[in-house]
Amino acid sequence: MATVQWRMTRLLAHYQVGGPAADIEARAAALALEQSIEMPLSAVTSDYVRQQVVATVEAIRPLEPDLHRVTLGIATATVGRDVGQLMNMLFGNCSLQDDVVLCDIELPPALLATWPGPRHGLAGLRTLVGAGPRALTMTALKPQGLPPAELAALAATFATAGIDIIKDDHGIADQDYAPFAARVAACQRAVSRANARTGGHSVYAPTLSGGPRQLAAQARLVREEGLRMVLACPMLMGLPAFEELVRHDLDCAVLAHPAFGGAARIAPPLLFGRLFRLLGADATVFPNHGGRFSYSPATCAALARAALAPWQGIKPCAPVPAGGMSVERVDEMLAFYGQDVILLIGGALLAAGTALPERAREFVTRVQQAGVSTGSVVP
Amino acid sequence: MATVQWRMTRLLAHYQVGGPAADIEARAAALALEQSIEMPLSAVTSDYVRQQVVATVEAIRPLEPDLHRVTLGIATATVGRDVGQLMNMLFGNCSLQDDVVLCDIELPPALLATWPGPRHGLAGLRTLVGAGPRALTMTALKPQGLPPAELAALAATFATAGIDIIKDDHGIADQDYAPFAARVAACQRAVSRANARTGGHSVYAPTLSGGPRQLAAQARLVREEGLRMVLACPMLMGLPAFEELVRHDLDCAVLAHPAFGGAARIAPPLLFGRLFRLLGADATVFPNHGGRFSYSPATCAALARAALAPWQGIKPCAPVPAGGMSVERVDEMLAFYGQDVILLIGGALLAAGTALPERAREFVTRVQQAGVSTGSVVP
Repeated sequence: MATVQWRMTRLLAHYQVGGPAADIEARAAALALEQSIEMPLSAVTSDYVRQQVVATVEAIRPLEPDLHRVTLGIATATVGRDVGQLMNMLFGNCSLQDDVVLCDIELPPALLATWPGPRHGLAGLRTLVGAGPRALTMTALKPQGLPPAELAALAATFATAGIDIIKDDHGIADQDYAPFAARVAACQRAVSRANARTGGHSVYAPTLSGGPRQLAAQARLVREEGLRMVLACPMLMGLPAFEELVRHDLDCAVLAHPAFGGAARIAPPLLFGRLFRLLGADATVFPNHGGRFSYSPATCAALARAALAPWQGIKPCAPVPAGGMSVERVDEMLAFYGQDVILLIGGALLAAGTALPERAREFVTRVQQAGVSTGSVVP
Repeated sequence: MATVQWRMTRLLAHYQVGGPAADIEARAAALALEQSIEMPLSAVTSDYVRQQVVATVEAIRPLEPDLHRVTLGIATATVGRDVGQLMNMLFGNCSLQDDVVLCDIELPPALLATWPGPRHGLAGLRTLVGAGPRALTMTALKPQGLPPAELAALAATFATAGIDIIKDDHGIADQDYAPFAARVAACQRAVSRANARTGGHSVYAPTLSGGPRQLAAQARLVREEGLRMVLACPMLMGLPAFEELVRHDLDCAVLAHPAFGGAARIAPPLLFGRLFRLLGADATVFPNHGGRFSYSPATCAALARAALAPWQGIKPCAPVPAGGMSVERVDEMLAFYGQDVILLIGGALLAAGTALPERAREFVTRVQQAGVSTGSVVP
């Protein structure tokens, strides 16, 4: 990793940012605001916020004619101690901007010490399977759909062959055809018996899955059965849940699987319109067209329809188009979305400075007095 | 939503898939395997798995010369009742393939009934803020960095103006400059007092954040303070954790924020090599070059280096290149990665059929007997 003179109150975040060189300084400055205070700098009155909270542009370096590496200095005070909030500060909003890729980070020592890293690590894994300084072997139990006895038979075969690590396929969760408890007991016993027979040290690693309650129950069973390794998909369970699981509920080794690492490419109407709704969101915020993000009017319309359309008795979820909206756009947005919408205006109100109370009131009045639109995108 | 004759044991997943028309049937068939059993069909011996578990290609429809809409039928038995596993079956692996976008889903009624949808929904939100069938208003308390008293003063201003919903900026978490408990109490009181003065019904919605334990504690405080709405970022906290929070810990209204919805575009060496490691992964699985995924050799090398390189006392994490590897590639992979690696071979072993024990043993032997490489990408 790069050696830097740490500015102890900042972490460094490196992004690749697309777009013409003539605009890159302004683009980088906008990115710094997006990833810190998310409002116009001119509207910030607190000296502390200006000096200690607003992200700084630390470097801009050309990579290709229309591609730059932009380095931001993000205040560690904004992160606290939560990995979810770390990801939020790094890539919360700009993950939604098509021209930005988060490339790398550099954390000052005090912040880095917040997270433990691997408990066993590579050397511990080698010890676990009785290996010297060689590469290790791993395979997967599959296909899902097999009952525990058949998965266990497969595990025995692999263990007998001396494969170091035998993991569940990451698609094997807690399905009815191979419930977690029965499967884990059967596979673990099969591997232990094979080891006893061969003198080997194969390890079985089941897939953990589910929400926090199910994960905690599975971790208990893992301890009770004496398992020494598990497989987990951090992006599926959520990085904060993954972090807690590893820190508090497990002491065995942990394999991370990249499943769901590409969620950006889920169509926004599905992810933000339907899935969030399905899981219980009463309202869903999304980047409106013509704002700071790149969604098209067609995407926004589809998203609003997805959130509102009849769907087998599931209540409609309120669409909340946002991201650089202004009081001036109220009428146009109501014409576009109709009345089944929540208008979210943040920075543009604060930009009014001392006229904020009036500006906010104007926002309210415009919406309350708007006539019912007939040209809405929502049927 | 489309009306379909439900095949009750399947959900439908619609993808946009890039690539030439001549290849689309084979590509769709490969996608069906990727999203179900993740191994060669020819190696499946169970009739149940072949008929009930393997995903089916239900439709292929041209969209543009090099773009098709592919519809898969995914067995609901593979999903169980966990939203993480739903996402896994829909987009776990193929989220990592650049030519695939998950566009839409259709869930059979029994599976859909697994999740509750919004508790309040749009109508409940309107009732909550005393509004008729009009659009609602929302704003955000910001910038982060302000102390609770200043955020509360801002909230009072917005409530006095009659804005329906006053939410925390999604960047406001549990930072030292505005701890959750103090901030929530101050802002809620400010809004309540303004309402009492104006006769209005403004609602304050704080941002919830953190891992499952912190979320549960925050939800308790939300109930104790009598709050009627919260803001949550499902992609930051993880969809399963979000689902549990809403279902078990909250009864107030929930606003979903899209932060971190674009995680695909985090550089793989950072996400899978460093972040997973930082959070406690002892090994990290990733798509090797020349397999079923599109990572380049350079990306894979950078990922392995990120997982292994010295990093302020954090133990190295074992890189696990995978995704269509074979016994034949063992020597080449060891030459590329050196010995600090775990080789993961799944389907290619199973493809050996009755020769599986020998094939697995060959895998083991090749790795154990390989000489130490000198040309490794890992310094």
